[in-house]
Amino acid sequence: MTQKALETPTPPTLAEHSNGFRLRAETLTVPTRNRVELINITERLAAQVRSSGIRDGLAVVSSLHTTLALFINEFQGALLDDICTFLEESVVRNRYYKHNDPAHSDCDRSNADAHLRALLLGHHLVLPIRNGELLLGTFQSVILAELDGPRERALQLQILGTG
Amino acid sequence: MTQKALETPTPPTLAEHSNGFRLRAETLTVPTRNRVELINITERLAAQVRSSGIRDGLAVVSSLHTTLALFINEFQGALLDDICTFLEESVVRNRYYKHNDPAHSDCDRSNADAHLRALLLGHHLVLPIRNGELLLGTFQSVILAELDGPRERALQLQILGTG
Amino acid sequence: MTQKALETPTPPTLAEHSNGFRLRAETLTVPTRNRVELINITERLAAQVRSSGIRDGLAVVSSLHTTLALFINEFQGALLDDICTFLEESVVRNRYYKHNDPAHSDCDRSNADAHLRALLLGHHLVLPIRNGELLLGTFQSVILAELDGPRERALQLQILGTG
Repeated sequence: MTQKALETPTPPTLAEHSNGFRLRAETLTVPTRNRVELINITERLAAQVRSSGIRDGLAVVSSLHTTLALFINEFQGALLDDICTFLEESVVRNRYYKHNDPAHSDCDRSNADAHLRALLLGHHLVLPIRNGELLLGTFQSVILAELDGPRERALQLQILGTG
Repeated sequence: MTQKALETPTPPTLAEHSNGFRLRAETLTVPTRNRVELINITERLAAQVRSSGIRDGLAVVSSLHTTLALFINEFQGALLDDICTFLEESVVRNRYYKHNDPAHSDCDRSNADAHLRALLLGHHLVLPIRNGELLLGTFQSVILAELDGPRERALQLQILGTG
Repeated sequence: MTQKALETPTPPTLAEHSNGFRLRAETLTVPTRNRVELINITERLAAQVRSSGIRDGLAVVSSLHTTLALFINEFQGALLDDICTFLEESVVRNRYYKHNDPAHSDCDRSNADAHLRALLLGHHLVLPIRNGELLLGTFQSVILAELDGPRERALQLQILGTG
């Protein structure tokens, strides 16, 4: 079956709420295993949304690190390899960066590439919640991009809306 | 008149609200006509904000597709051509991608370029609402980027704030 | 001390609130001094969050200009130079753009590069608030990117959550 056939849009629906604001704030930790690594966190976020009891609203997931990014895309092995190649070519690791030069910087991680790749991808996502579930398209996954691991990483999750 | 002369900042204003939370959730559909197409959805969003009756808050518009992006910029024909050229040069369509290779992927759309271009642009926007109106700068438009059309596409719109 | 040692994740905490929604909307102005300039606005936003009295929620900061962007990264002189170099190389200023060509455009600022650089970076950020404070990672700063200054610029700040 082709992607075109599958990616049928959800039928239009309208929900309206007054009052009853709820918010849940939580810090999640994620261990990473490689310098560059793409991790699918969709199911983990979806479970947090379900357990929050919030029916309609937003889930905001924020990286608490400069070299840890978040993005939405299809979590398919071949495409993930293409995404890594794209990041490597868009921001080459082994060239001169001031941030990696001890004459200009006190950072000893030589991770300028990781900072610039995170700049391209972004550090947070705002996701809709509908009927108590994270609402994503058929092929959309929420992907964490470790760009200078391995490390123990932290994400902030703010879930808000009506209960 | 130059852009500099026109782009006068709004005078600082402060609004504070307690209680009275309201939320409206809606799915919008957008048909697209070309493989790559930039569509101005500002007026459509502005009308939804007005009809929601929400006075101060946020409008969050989310693409429900991996190859449909959203961004803010000036909606001027010449600039839109420059943006398309930029996307074509930043992510070349006709080169080797694993996602387009039947030996590695079950996707038959050969749309790796569309996935990577969406990665650059992003899949959602969070827009301020003030005094019952979508608040944008003089030259800012909300632009939908179809990157692998034509298709019938869906956007989720979450409008929340105080009524 | 290395970045790895410092960037310890915050211990997981959970806060849940019902009702008591509060929202504060404000327009901030920022003068810029150069054509391209990166300005650290973290402390200014953190002060606004503190004065709002909102305990848990979100701060959404939005550029009200097409050529003014916002991003999160480390505010270190050497890295800021690398970021500027990256922007200059990713979007070259002195090449042909339709937007800069009087035959195709009524814009006399020749600022197509600024529009495309803003496209790469994005125009808004959504930041978590926890315990009455803007929550950022140890090395994260909120950075304003003037891409076609100098000018007087405006940002919209929407702070919302529970008081």
